[in-house]
Amino acid sequence: MVRYANRMENVKASDIRELLKITDRPEMISFAGGLPAPELFPVERLKDVTVRVLESCGSEALQYATTEGFGPLRMKIAGRMNKKYGTRLSARNVMIVCGSQQGLDFTGKIFLNEGDVILCESPTYLGALNAFKAYRPRILEVPTDDDGMLLDRLEEILDSVDRIKLIYTIPDFQNPSGRSWSAERRAGFMKLLAGRDILVVEDAPYSELRFEGDMLPPLKAFDTEGFVIYLGSLSKVFCPGMRIGWVAADERILEKYVLVKQGADLHSAGFTQRIISMYMDLYELDDDISKIRKVYKKRRDAMLDAISVEFPAGTKFTHPQGGLFTWIELDENINTRELLAECLERNVAFVPGEPFFPNGGGRNTMRLNYSNMPEEKIAEGIRLIGTAIGEMVSR
Amino acid sequence: MVRYANRMENVKASDIRELLKITDRPEMISFAGGLPAPELFPVERLKDVTVRVLESCGSEALQYATTEGFGPLRMKIAGRMNKKYGTRLSARNVMIVCGSQQGLDFTGKIFLNEGDVILCESPTYLGALNAFKAYRPRILEVPTDDDGMLLDRLEEILDSVDRIKLIYTIPDFQNPSGRSWSAERRAGFMKLLAGRDILVVEDAPYSELRFEGDMLPPLKAFDTEGFVIYLGSLSKVFCPGMRIGWVAADERILEKYVLVKQGADLHSAGFTQRIISMYMDLYELDDDISKIRKVYKKRRDAMLDAISVEFPAGTKFTHPQGGLFTWIELDENINTRELLAECLERNVAFVPGEPFFPNGGGRNTMRLNYSNMPEEKIAEGIRLIGTAIGEMVSR
Repeated sequence: MVRYANRMENVKASDIRELLKITDRPEMISFAGGLPAPELFPVERLKDVTVRVLESCGSEALQYATTEGFGPLRMKIAGRMNKKYGTRLSARNVMIVCGSQQGLDFTGKIFLNEGDVILCESPTYLGALNAFKAYRPRILEVPTDDDGMLLDRLEEILDSVDRIKLIYTIPDFQNPSGRSWSAERRAGFMKLLAGRDILVVEDAPYSELRFEGDMLPPLKAFDTEGFVIYLGSLSKVFCPGMRIGWVAADERILEKYVLVKQGADLHSAGFTQRIISMYMDLYELDDDISKIRKVYKKRRDAMLDAISVEFPAGTKFTHPQGGLFTWIELDENINTRELLAECLERNVAFVPGEPFFPNGGGRNTMRLNYSNMPEEKIAEGIRLIGTAIGEMVSR
Repeated sequence: MVRYANRMENVKASDIRELLKITDRPEMISFAGGLPAPELFPVERLKDVTVRVLESCGSEALQYATTEGFGPLRMKIAGRMNKKYGTRLSARNVMIVCGSQQGLDFTGKIFLNEGDVILCESPTYLGALNAFKAYRPRILEVPTDDDGMLLDRLEEILDSVDRIKLIYTIPDFQNPSGRSWSAERRAGFMKLLAGRDILVVEDAPYSELRFEGDMLPPLKAFDTEGFVIYLGSLSKVFCPGMRIGWVAADERILEKYVLVKQGADLHSAGFTQRIISMYMDLYELDDDISKIRKVYKKRRDAMLDAISVEFPAGTKFTHPQGGLFTWIELDENINTRELLAECLERNVAFVPGEPFFPNGGGRNTMRLNYSNMPEEKIAEGIRLIGTAIGEMVSR
């Protein structure tokens, strides 16, 4: 009999993931994943850059490398954040990780004892919950509206709950809700946290994908005390298949991430780090991003338009100003897990909302991704879901 | 004040790592790292393969991918092991990880509760100790001779110590000692473990780098009960900079690795997995490996010859039949940390042996790597170390 660690009781297979395994069939219209549009990946440019990397520094790119990451890439990432957000980071504040998911796992490993409390938005990113759960924390949801966490409710929790170690946030185009925190909420949140010895994790993979409204400063830009750990990612603005994300944090905190990464996988691939670094020298990443924004805006519009027409009157849905997702709240009597089963038979998929609530609930909610399907498929898929909802309601 | 998890007390910076940071200076002769020879990386072939991958399946290679790894690569790795070792693995027994170091970390996460016991060779691989320590096990060393773990001593420990969860082994060209387990020892070890509900981790990054003697079957080849977890790596036989390793295990155990990887980093880079997979289709990996073997054999010979001449009479050193390292035992009065300080001033580096003993000791030992330096540098470096030893002895 194989004896696993106790923590594995908290690391479970997801029934929904099993269900959704069939969504890679070509006939399927899938709004389930969080996949970027692959037709926008800069494949031609990458051919050029990859050959150049192998010609100019092949031996170095293919050798073992430093745990912190490739120095010039760390510097460019820090510089880019400083220019865009007014942060004051240097390369020494940045460590490269295998996608920001790895930053989440390391955060759990570095900070969480069993029973420590994490606060999060409600709903929140499922993958973060998965990463944290292995360290057996108590996860409490902070009530959230369209502008972010409700600060009076947050304050009550901060004043009444023991052992709060960190607050997990996605201020821009949140996964799963598509909502963004208002500027006032960001400032108020940071003011409320000052001097409390509680860490803030700012997960920001979508921040650069704004296609409407003004850019809002990340929490990290307000962080004079060094308690914000910023997780960045190139997966949504460049490509996910190279697994490059970063942690930006206070230097003393970042040292712990470096030690943990040393034990976890030695370092991220030098080959892909050098490719991205050279890409940033030869091409303007912002050009790629503005192409992505244009396409995603059209897809969002197509989805929201179709929802307005095809879903029952009174259906609530968010109006994301960027990112990849919208969030639907159906009539209370509709169970979206059951709806998913119906929809899969019609070759259309989404993710039911319940798993995004760490303590249950949201059985009538769902997350829809619009970045990975062309507009005509979006229209057709939403029509199919709308029909399925209609049939469930009439039963 | 930042409050870290208790486990971080066991995740410490290494003073030796700090010392060795200077070894990437060009004037340094370094026997310290475990670096393969970069001049043997197949850079030209990789240019060809990478372009082909981007042309034939760029969008797929750059997109999110499955946690288990790229199916065809998993199949090739299983097939390759079956052919070489007579194992009976299918793709379903293989998960791709970011270097076998990630397999070590996941092993700790999946199996270890605080206070569980790990048995290991004495000395053993420092990076495995680093990975495991974060899960706060008790680590006990099994006395070891030139043929592997001493089975009578192992049996005593098995019969007298509680909470033994797993045994960590490197049967081929061990890091740090360069020793390999004899065929008899392998068979006897597996017989001794049968029916005990103890897992065996077989770490095998060097196995294909044999340049003398006959290939010996891995422990996994004896594993009829499914208690051996095999960790493979392409870092030493292809290149480390793509971070590709694998876990080969019983299907039910591997499911846990997949769940943990899902939370830890979603998946390994599809881009590099597809490059390696196509490389294995277009080229014969064994051709590359036989080139590496020839070069390393010469370097080993150069190092052992120089040690015989330059080090004090009576110095013990191992005669590795493959791999990257030899292991030195100096006169008991010589502290190799102090020797390292002397040597760094002369621009030659190695790793003192003490950190490879989880419970201390071995202050007069050192690990020497011969794969990363040309023969003339090896001769010169060993001469410099020999002189430094001589001076310490005469003081």
